[in-house]
Amino acid sequence: MLKEIEKFLKSKISNRKNYAIPKVWIEGFEQVYGDIFEEKENLLFVNPYLFFSKSISFILEHAKDIEYSKSLSIINGKKENNWIKNACIYGSLPRMTTAFNHKGFGTFEELDILGFKESGTFLKMIPLLLYMKKFKINTLYLLPISSSSTLFKKGSIGSPYAVKNPLKIDESYHDPLLEIFNVDDEFKALVEAAHILNIRVILDFIPRTASRDSDLIKNHPDWFYWIKIDDLSTYKPPKIEQLPFKIPDINDLHIIYRNLEVRKHLKKFVDSPDKIDPQKWEKVKNMEGNILVNIIKEFGIVTPPGFSDWVNDTQPTWDDITFLRLYLDHPIAAQNYVPENQKPYILFDVIKASKFPGAKPNYELWEYLSDIIPTYQKKFGIDGARIDMGHALPSKLQEMIIKKAKNLDPSFVFIAEELEMDNDEKAKNDGYNMILGNTWYSVARREEFYKLVEEKSIKMKLPFMASPETPDTPRISAREFGDKLKYLAPFLIYFLPNGVPYINSGQEIGEIQPMNLGLDNSIWGKTVLPPDDEFYGKLAFFDHYVLHWNNVDKNIFNFLKELMKMREIYKEFILNGEFKYVYFNYQDGYLANYSYWINNKGIIIVGNLDLSWGREFEIYLDKTYGENLEIKSINIWKKDGNIPIIAPSNVLKMFLDPGDFALIKINI
Amino acid sequence: MLKEIEKFLKSKISNRKNYAIPKVWIEGFEQVYGDIFEEKENLLFVNPYLFFSKSISFILEHAKDIEYSKSLSIINGKKENNWIKNACIYGSLPRMTTAFNHKGFGTFEELDILGFKESGTFLKMIPLLLYMKKFKINTLYLLPISSSSTLFKKGSIGSPYAVKNPLKIDESYHDPLLEIFNVDDEFKALVEAAHILNIRVILDFIPRTASRDSDLIKNHPDWFYWIKIDDLSTYKPPKIEQLPFKIPDINDLHIIYRNLEVRKHLKKFVDSPDKIDPQKWEKVKNMEGNILVNIIKEFGIVTPPGFSDWVNDTQPTWDDITFLRLYLDHPIAAQNYVPENQKPYILFDVIKASKFPGAKPNYELWEYLSDIIPTYQKKFGIDGARIDMGHALPSKLQEMIIKKAKNLDPSFVFIAEELEMDNDEKAKNDGYNMILGNTWYSVARREEFYKLVEEKSIKMKLPFMASPETPDTPRISAREFGDKLKYLAPFLIYFLPNGVPYINSGQEIGEIQPMNLGLDNSIWGKTVLPPDDEFYGKLAFFDHYVLHWNNVDKNIFNFLKELMKMREIYKEFILNGEFKYVYFNYQDGYLANYSYWINNKGIIIVGNLDLSWGREFEIYLDKTYGENLEIKSINIWKKDGNIPIIAPSNVLKMFLDPGDFALIKINI
Repeated sequence: MLKEIEKFLKSKISNRKNYAIPKVWIEGFEQVYGDIFEEKENLLFVNPYLFFSKSISFILEHAKDIEYSKSLSIINGKKENNWIKNACIYGSLPRMTTAFNHKGFGTFEELDILGFKESGTFLKMIPLLLYMKKFKINTLYLLPISSSSTLFKKGSIGSPYAVKNPLKIDESYHDPLLEIFNVDDEFKALVEAAHILNIRVILDFIPRTASRDSDLIKNHPDWFYWIKIDDLSTYKPPKIEQLPFKIPDINDLHIIYRNLEVRKHLKKFVDSPDKIDPQKWEKVKNMEGNILVNIIKEFGIVTPPGFSDWVNDTQPTWDDITFLRLYLDHPIAAQNYVPENQKPYILFDVIKASKFPGAKPNYELWEYLSDIIPTYQKKFGIDGARIDMGHALPSKLQEMIIKKAKNLDPSFVFIAEELEMDNDEKAKNDGYNMILGNTWYSVARREEFYKLVEEKSIKMKLPFMASPETPDTPRISAREFGDKLKYLAPFLIYFLPNGVPYINSGQEIGEIQPMNLGLDNSIWGKTVLPPDDEFYGKLAFFDHYVLHWNNVDKNIFNFLKELMKMREIYKEFILNGEFKYVYFNYQDGYLANYSYWINNKGIIIVGNLDLSWGREFEIYLDKTYGENLEIKSINIWKKDGNIPIIAPSNVLKMFLDPGDFALIKINI
Repeated sequence: MLKEIEKFLKSKISNRKNYAIPKVWIEGFEQVYGDIFEEKENLLFVNPYLFFSKSISFILEHAKDIEYSKSLSIINGKKENNWIKNACIYGSLPRMTTAFNHKGFGTFEELDILGFKESGTFLKMIPLLLYMKKFKINTLYLLPISSSSTLFKKGSIGSPYAVKNPLKIDESYHDPLLEIFNVDDEFKALVEAAHILNIRVILDFIPRTASRDSDLIKNHPDWFYWIKIDDLSTYKPPKIEQLPFKIPDINDLHIIYRNLEVRKHLKKFVDSPDKIDPQKWEKVKNMEGNILVNIIKEFGIVTPPGFSDWVNDTQPTWDDITFLRLYLDHPIAAQNYVPENQKPYILFDVIKASKFPGAKPNYELWEYLSDIIPTYQKKFGIDGARIDMGHALPSKLQEMIIKKAKNLDPSFVFIAEELEMDNDEKAKNDGYNMILGNTWYSVARREEFYKLVEEKSIKMKLPFMASPETPDTPRISAREFGDKLKYLAPFLIYFLPNGVPYINSGQEIGEIQPMNLGLDNSIWGKTVLPPDDEFYGKLAFFDHYVLHWNNVDKNIFNFLKELMKMREIYKEFILNGEFKYVYFNYQDGYLANYSYWINNKGIIIVGNLDLSWGREFEIYLDKTYGENLEIKSINIWKKDGNIPIIAPSNVLKMFLDPGDFALIKINI
């Protein structure tokens, strides 16, 4: 597909340089693009067909004559999934990562007056693969790209997590420059290009929920819950005065079900439209227009919004999604409490199906859900998947999902949405190959940070994402002391044992606006940009958002490039070296440290977690190494560059400014 | 039309109460609506057809058997335009004033899932006329309602000031409840309803500019300026290093035109598309789709954005509008400086056509522009107009506009966008009947406030808007000391000589979010709401905005009702009484005061402009009145109610808290 797109693009090249791109997308690629740009007002203008064909041609030069729409492991004849330990991940919502005002004047438009798609497209991701290679990225993790709904949307566009059709790719990713192609072609080309460049592709899947107007309703209205439309204005998770804020236990159920609000809540649910009036349903399901709107009009019923599985969670309802009906009956543990003739309903226990299963699995739905990933494997050759809300899935369903994918490709990798580091073993037993973890939380808290580095990471039974920030968290640059943490956090965690370095799209240019406020943030987190910024208050999950490509933090950009280069150079030490703590002349819980050794060669990582005060200390190299060490050379790398130690000895005197750090190379 | 709409609505009434409205819209109208509402979660649900037909029926009960689509003066056989002196104005952008989440769940949608138009419609303005009557409103001033463009829009919807077609009403105002009617019908019905209720209607017109893709382009491409599309990314007002920030004088022109940036700027302009290629133009002008997009594609040219007529203004370009070509040649004063063969261009002098006219007026355009208001007069019977940027119009054009309207209706009133109180006489000579003035500016600054009350207002040659806030300014409740000013400012200025009380839609419920940041505000002005508010950061000029109808400031609401009632009661004093300053035992510039007398009856207005300290003082009634005064009774009205003075005497002892005020009634 990549070749066909290259051919098409070449046929359309003209002299018109009217497509603006950020400088940083192409910096350092003179060998790829040559002199095809014209600079105006600090923007590069280019003929778009020439630009994209140049990048694709360059990638194709590295291609062999094989089918790249298979997982990279299958291509290379490998069956292991330990590649994830070698991964360096770039996490991207392509809608955001590749959004840019290509007309070069005025403000952002999804599709602009010159006919350019300014929101993200897969075509634009292709030259960005080269950009990612500068950071030694070998794995691209994409947030959901499946067709999403705009019904009950929270911002100006739909959230990628409100999945309208899990089997379809969102049409918005089509680039109008590629007139004759479609999003499937374009995503295929992106995966091919990534695989040629030895970059694996991981997608995000959401089996527990669907958009309120999911395409699945048409053939399976009984896979959804239904309430009367007139009850929607009062629909919300019932308040259980007698209980605190908690995930309910089996012992709480009698309190919950006796609650008056719960009883009212249960009465709101009705049968699915096909049961209410089968004949009418046959007509309504084929009507033109949005299926849910038609059901509301004709039946007066609607799929209810989602809510948290915690009792007394103060979060508002999740208006853009609804839960899928995973069991055909009520939770076993609740069956004694549920009124007779109760219609299928949603409550805390129903949501948390992993803990409160029913007796009759909705196998037809389970088959459907577990076939989603294999469809993407067969069509595009993706290499892995993240499972959203896996913790709420019945364990049997989770098993089915993992098994089917691994049957097709044993090297296929599953990432659990598991934020608790201590649940590593559980996730491993469930068949996952990696967890998200909570490094982004730890790095912002000195004691947690110290624990992460000195205790947790070495004990992990599964790799975890070493992520200073994620799409759900504050940006590392926007944290308190962000000007120090944006360097210190990636430095200390990208080298951790079991850590898989993760760059959250935008992190590398010092972006401060979060993409979502889901974790470790408050509502004020969306107000960090100056209010005259075009994207002030916008969150990429709910609105169009353009990264500040025209205002790149060059210091962090160059630092991360350098850091990832060294991570690559010393990868052997991290993966196969001997892990040892570092011996100092004192330790006050502020000096993060670890080291890796292969024979008498070592790398030592030290960082000052104190962001206000410096630290002077000595490192005892012998004691660190564990026996006598012949020291031939010591090189210290710090943020500003390399410092060779002239007279290397067993005792290394160091001074680290607040938040400063060093990589010390022994005999290397 | 109102009757026809009533009939249609009645034919659609059902029992379904699914249309949510704010309580405050109907409070106090039990006699109109009876018991048609159901309350749920602090919202009123009603059958929409029943609700609207009830309000229309009530209005029609007051109607005579006459045609209400004429100006109220024509209806009443009056030819004077001094009605404006009697006016109490409610200023509204109906798109905002009547916006509400009528489905009663989830978030605002322009057109919602139940088929309700949640953004503003003329139909919804009709019950709000009754609401306005509670504030003794007799004049409704509407911000532009003509068809506006979304091209190069600044927010999520187009600004009402980016006029796509001045002769068409914006389609968005159609209410889908009124299936068989159109916006013209609906606006006609609104004007009829207003006139039945003795409320006049004033519209806002914008003759100087048009949207970038104005409908006028099709038949008059030569009424616009044109530049090459590739120059758009660098198009901006040229910086004139040698000049300060100023409106240029004739002596500045040789500096401006010799400037290098200006020379480059002038080269960007090209002929209109019909001149470039008449044959091609005939094809392109009839193509489907947006006319400007087609011109860009086919000719590679575009109408340029507007900018300020001040040299070295740091405002960015006004991207959603472009200037109309008022003269067929260059400004007379500039003709010596302009290069030969210069294409029609925009520069500071061209924009300020009132000061720098050309020699050849574009009469065809002037006829068109001066026919716009008469079209609305004939079709709907509007009562007045505000002219936007009138100060930049050639005086002859301004004259034409005013004359044509007054020929049709001598009572027709023109309001000048004149913010300088001292320009009252000029505006009067130009034919205007009222100016906007800058009371909103004065009330926020103690010394200015004092000057306004004690000097300026009595000297005015024209009525001015007594407006604590306007659509362009900060909300009075959001000003520093807003909790005091929101009472003090309306109290002191609504009774001023020559002042016309103006309530800016939302002011009466204590809304704090401004509608626009145009005047006396900074970019931070848009961040006054809590960030979890659904409309945080939204400005009604550029985005959908719903007033906080569910969180009404009842204190200010009731206060303004009471204040306007008293304004009505004592109107005779203000219009025909003798104006006198008030004699105190001392004056330190903080005690605002004035009084009106008819024979030995008087009303005295005093207010403490000191918002931090109280004032104790004495009023000498004799000296105020100017001769001996037989005092039979004194009543003091303060915010909290009426206080009769038991033993009235010539010396009245007063204490006013910070920002407090009183209306003192003598012998009334």
